[in-house]
Formats: sequence, C-alpha cells, structure tokens
Amino acid sequence: MDQLEAKFSRLGVDNAPGQEITQAEERLQLIGEKIPGKPVDFSHGDVDAFEPTPGSLDTFIRGVYSGGVQAYTEYKGRGDIREALAERLSAFTDTPISADTQLIITPGTQGALFLAMGSLVGRGDKVAIVEPDYFANRKLTQFFDGEMIPVELNYLESDERAGLDLTRLEAAFKDGVKVFLFSNPNNPTGVVYSPDEVQSIGLLAQKYGVSLIVDQLNSRQIFDGRVYTHLCAQEALPETLITIIGPSKTESLSGYRLGVAFGSQKIIKRMEQLQAIVSLRAGGYSQAVLKSWFDEPEGWIEERTNAHERIRDDLLALLRGVEGVKVRKAEAGSYLFIKTPELTVTMGNFVKILRVQAAVTVTPGTEFGPQFTDSFRINFSQDHHFAVEAVKRTIQMIERYRK
Amino acid sequence: MDQLEAKFSRLGVDNAPGQEITQAEERLQLIGEKIPGKPVDFSHGDVDAFEPTPGSLDTFIRGVYSGGVQAYTEYKGRGDIREALAERLSAFTDTPISADTQLIITPGTQGALFLAMGSLVGRGDKVAIVEPDYFANRKLTQFFDGEMIPVELNYLESDERAGLDLTRLEAAFKDGVKVFLFSNPNNPTGVVYSPDEVQSIGLLAQKYGVSLIVDQLNSRQIFDGRVYTHLCAQEALPETLITIIGPSKTESLSGYRLGVAFGSQKIIKRMEQLQAIVSLRAGGYSQAVLKSWFDEPEGWIEERTNAHERIRDDLLALLRGVEGVKVRKAEAGSYLFIKTPELTVTMGNFVKILRVQAAVTVTPGTEFGPQFTDSFRINFSQDHHFAVEAVKRTIQMIERYRK
Repeated sequence: MDQLEAKFSRLGVDNAPGQEITQAEERLQLIGEKIPGKPVDFSHGDVDAFEPTPGSLDTFIRGVYSGGVQAYTEYKGRGDIREALAERLSAFTDTPISADTQLIITPGTQGALFLAMGSLVGRGDKVAIVEPDYFANRKLTQFFDGEMIPVELNYLESDERAGLDLTRLEAAFKDGVKVFLFSNPNNPTGVVYSPDEVQSIGLLAQKYGVSLIVDQLNSRQIFDGRVYTHLCAQEALPETLITIIGPSKTESLSGYRLGVAFGSQKIIKRMEQLQAIVSLRAGGYSQAVLKSWFDEPEGWIEERTNAHERIRDDLLALLRGVEGVKVRKAEAGSYLFIKTPELTVTMGNFVKILRVQAAVTVTPGTEFGPQFTDSFRINFSQDHHFAVEAVKRTIQMIERYRK
Repeated sequence: MDQLEAKFSRLGVDNAPGQEITQAEERLQLIGEKIPGKPVDFSHGDVDAFEPTPGSLDTFIRGVYSGGVQAYTEYKGRGDIREALAERLSAFTDTPISADTQLIITPGTQGALFLAMGSLVGRGDKVAIVEPDYFANRKLTQFFDGEMIPVELNYLESDERAGLDLTRLEAAFKDGVKVFLFSNPNNPTGVVYSPDEVQSIGLLAQKYGVSLIVDQLNSRQIFDGRVYTHLCAQEALPETLITIIGPSKTESLSGYRLGVAFGSQKIIKRMEQLQAIVSLRAGGYSQAVLKSWFDEPEGWIEERTNAHERIRDDLLALLRGVEGVKVRKAEAGSYLFIKTPELTVTMGNFVKILRVQAAVTVTPGTEFGPQFTDSFRINFSQDHHFAVEAVKRTIQMIERYRK
C-alpha cells in the first residue's frame, strides 16, 4: 500500500453526517416491525424547521446584481465585508481584529479549519485533539501527516465545567505538542468550557508555546443565560491563536458555505495563500450574505435560542427516563451526545437499523473518537414535534435492542 | 526555516489574478504622465460585460426555496444534479460517465484541481507540468511535496498544433513521472491541443502508467469552427484520468464557485473523502445553478463565442502592429499571452506601472512559468470598446518603456 493509499484508507466518509445515503445495503439482524413516523434526520439541523436568517436571500440577490466586484473578491474575501465582520466580531469576542491582516472569509468553517490546520501542521507535528470532538479534527491531523495526541473530555463528570483533562493536556504540551485544536461549545456534547478551563488553556499554551485553533461555530446560541468565555479575549495567550466561527448553525446559512477565521496575522496570511490553491475564495455572491450576519432583527437570536432550549428540555426529559441512558444537558448549540445501555448489536449497526426501522438518522459516536462505541449524536435543530416523536421511536429501538 | 515556513514562502499570491490590490506601494521609475481612460481589469473576465447565463439566479433562488435537500447535499453533490451533469457531460465529451461513482461537484474548478492533486500526488512524486500553464498547477505540486518536471509548450512555433514538446514529455514519463497535469485549451495562451497531441498524451500515459489530470475549463468556447479533442474520449488512455470542467468562464458563473471533475472511480472516491475535510461540499444552493448548465438557450453559446472572437481579432490587429510584440491567436477561451519587446523595467514593475499610469491590470507571465519574464496575460472577456481602448493604452506604455 503506497503512502496515498494508506492516507485515504483512513479518511472514511460513509458514516459522516449527511453521508448515510452512501452506506452499502447489508444484512442486518432486525428485531420486530418498522415503527411508523415522519423521517427525521438528526445528522444535521433542519433548515426547513429553522429557516435561514430573515433577509439573507435578498442580501445574496443584491450581491449578484452588484456584479463583478462581488463575483471576484480578493482571496481572503471582499474588503468592505471583512471590515464589517472585523468590527462585529471584535464586539462579540471583546478582542481587536484587523480586517486587513487578521481575518479571512472561507467556504464554511470546514474550509477555515482545513486552512488553519494546513497552515500549522507539518509532517510529524504533534497535534492535541479532544475526545470527543468534531470528526474532521482527527482526519485533518492525519491528512497533514501530524501525530495525534488525544486528550479526554470527561463531559459526564460534572455540570460545572466541560471536563477537559487539564493534567493530560499539560503533559501533552510538555511532550512537544505544536497545535491544540478544539471546539467550544464542544461538538458533539454541546458543553461550554468554563471560564477557568478557557483561561487554563490560554495559560498552558503560552507556557509551552503551543498554537491554538478554537472552533466557536456554536458560540452564539448559549442556553440558560450561561456566560460564554472567548479564548481570544484572555490575557494569557500563546503567539498563535486562530478563532473560527460561521453562520451555518444558529443562523441556518449552511447552504451558502460561509465561515470566518481571525487571529494571528502570520497564520491568516498563510491561510490566504493556501485558499488561493484550494478554492480561490468563498463563493463571491455568498460572501454578500455575511452583510446581514450579526445584524439580525432585534430579538431574533434570543427567540431562536429559546426555541432550541425548549426542544432540548423535552428530549432530555424523555431520554433521562430510560434506564442506562446517559446524556449531559447541552449548554449551547443543538447537539446531544447520547450514551446508550449495552445493546445486542454494534453501534454502527444500531444506527443503520434505526434508519431502516424507525426512519431516524443519527451519527455514531465513533465519528467523534474511536472509544465512543456506545454513543450517538443528534442535532436537535428540528421541528419540535417531529423531533420528540423521533426520539420516542429511538427509545423504543433502544429498548428493543437492549442486552 | 521550518518545513511549513519553507512551503509557504513559495506560495506567493500577490501577483495572482485579482490580488493586485494587495501589492505593496513602492517607488516605481515612472516615465511620462498618466494616460486617461476607463480602468480595465484584464486579470479576469468581466461578468458585467458578459453576464451570467440567463436564468442562473432564478435557478439559484429555486434552490434556496427547496430548503434542506439543497442546503445539505452529499459531499460529492446532490444526486439528481450529478445525474443531469453526467448525462450532459457524457454527450459533450463522448464518454460514458457514471453519476454515482465517476463524478464530483466541487467549489470551482480550483477546488477540483486541489482535490485531484491531493488524491494523486504524494511526497516526492514526480509531476509533469506544462510551461506556460495555469499558475496553481505548480503551486499545487509544491504544496503536496511533489517534484515538478517542467515540459515546454512551444506555442509560438506553429499554428497547426499547441506545441507540446512530446519528446520531452516521453523522457519525463520514462524518468518516473507519476502525474501529468495540463490545461486544454491552454491557460494562458488560449491554444487548443491538436488531435494528434491529445492522442499522443493518452498513448504515452498508457505506455508509462502515468495518471492524467486535464483542466478543460475553457473547452466550450472554441473559435473559428475548430475541432476540440477530448482526452477522455481517446482509445489509448492510462488507468487514471480525471477531467475537470466548470461554468466559471464562458458562462460567467464564477461568483457561484462551481466546478466538476469526472473520471476514474478510485480517484473520484478519494476526492470525495478529501472534500469532506476541505470544505464539505460545493455550496448547496449554488449547486442548483448547475441545473441550467449545458442547457442554455439555443444559440447562446455561439453568440457569446462570436462576440469573443470579434474582441480577439480587434486586439490582435492592434498588438500585431507593434514591433517586437509576439502573440499567438487564441483558439479558445478568452486569454492572450503577450510577449513584449525588451523593456527598460522588469515585467513585475511594468505590470505595476501599467496599473498606475494607464489603469490597465494584467497578469505577469511569471505566474505561468518562471521563464516568462517578458510576457503578460490578458483575459479579453471584457466590454469590447473599453478592451480596445485599454490595449491601445497598453501599447503606448510598451512604446514608452521600450529599451
């Protein structure tokens, strides 16, 4: 097997969210009949239930009408849009951001993650990755020939903190980790790192000269009045910090493929250089949609956040009634990471059976770390009623396949 | 300098088309006064002069209204759109294409190039690259740690063939080249490879087991009734061939960031795996615009092609009246690669002076190969009248700075 064969053999996508359609049909040991109900795809948010920000399409159309200046922007994004974003993100994160040298518009936050990792991870570099965390983090480390150092998030241990194993993190940093990449709020658990945890990450990275990449994709939708702590606003920070955020989740603008990264000038410059050969730029017309980002109608974010809180609470009430199920209350975003009791089938097969018998699509825990063979993730940004019905069917299925 | 520092130091973007705004102001030795005239940016096509395909925005809007199914497609693109494309591209290229296993929708043809190169070029692999050819080809080879083997295109030697040095190509293949990447029609010269050249490339690649990537971005706009030869339709071909095409040029749809790659199943699969960590998918709503691709109003492509032919002819007549200027008649697309007589300033500075004194933006030849220090490229997909005026100013500037 040559180097590329080996590399791509580790880059599976069939279980990635939204890719379920590619799964090969195979013999499953089914118990019982199908449970009727409206299909629900918990692998991603439902933009039909929670629609894109009001006015986003109009902003796009005005972008198209403005013609060449919007179609062909600088690789890092159109200047006036970067300026507006730098100002709003500065206010949001309480951090100064130069529109000219410290910010880049990317095709989705996935695009930003790829560019940031490609700009910071070289062959053999040690990269600390949280487990569980967003599935692409590990794949990116592998693709850039980095060496992955897992750090556990003990998310079920306490409600006071996310549960990052700081002792393990420091040991990893001491051992030569070059880059630490993590999402906050955490994907898949929906937990928010405590002020103390965020501060410790900054301090440790500064002490050991570790570059930080923080994926804050879900940081606008915070529940229960909780305070969100921005890493970039901390006093103690390393030389290199890249913050990633985008309008694909709370704002339901995923169809426009937009993300933003901001932070250390040297790395933003590299990301621009890399973008030039990866995809040139985020779609020119789509960039126009960012004009309405962080400028939504008054109360719109609060209303959306409250609606998600209510769904979360109803699903949690159902799930917590099931013996052996463990799930932490999501503190932000729209994910629940659900640990099941022991089942008679593997999680990989349970997920397939759930789709076939109950018309419910979820993402297996192993996408977020190899050890999560007893968990799955749901994105509860769905129609409230149908999400409740789908979780009821899921619980029936857990009972049916319980060991 | 560490490995990443070294890698990114070679990935300059300041002279790339559309990036001129980032060039540092510096002292230029100016001769004479500014020449007044409407600014013309020849670094890319003007989508205000040649507008996007009729109905493209309506197709996009319908995509947005269709909601989640269009926002969240499979990573390789929405199924029904891939099916339509496979059928139309099969007819266009006279080659069978499976929508399911042999085609992927990407964010622009740049995205397709990146994914194809990332799927085929490993550390130390030899990659044959034509000179002159699209600037990203060399940068991609470097980024993936490949070894670049240049092969000359003697495009000024004959009007009968593009001028590829086939002896050199075979020597390179014999010497262990793994991948050969080239654009046809050639960017920046606008020449079309002859049937014999295309056939020879297929034969040689088959003989030596070389993987082929052909960038056919400009293959729909062919001038003077010339026949375009599709590499993928040849009888003798290697195991691996990826063809790349997209609607960013002739169709002026660059603002939607869309491209397509089709070919060998194994590599298309890898490209899908890679897309999952690079940008997830081409913008979901944008993908809808492909529904109208290769389905334009009757006569629309012919009319657009004829309009470009007329601009080409007027610019050529002007340029050929200048002593020492050498330029081959473009046979397709919208590029002219213009070789100047010896100047008193470097080409890098001439390009900057041209922008400052004559409001004309062009791309220096060195973006297409290090030896093209006496050439620049123009994209003549512009308003006819203003393009003519801008080339007149450019000629005045050549006279002013002639040695």
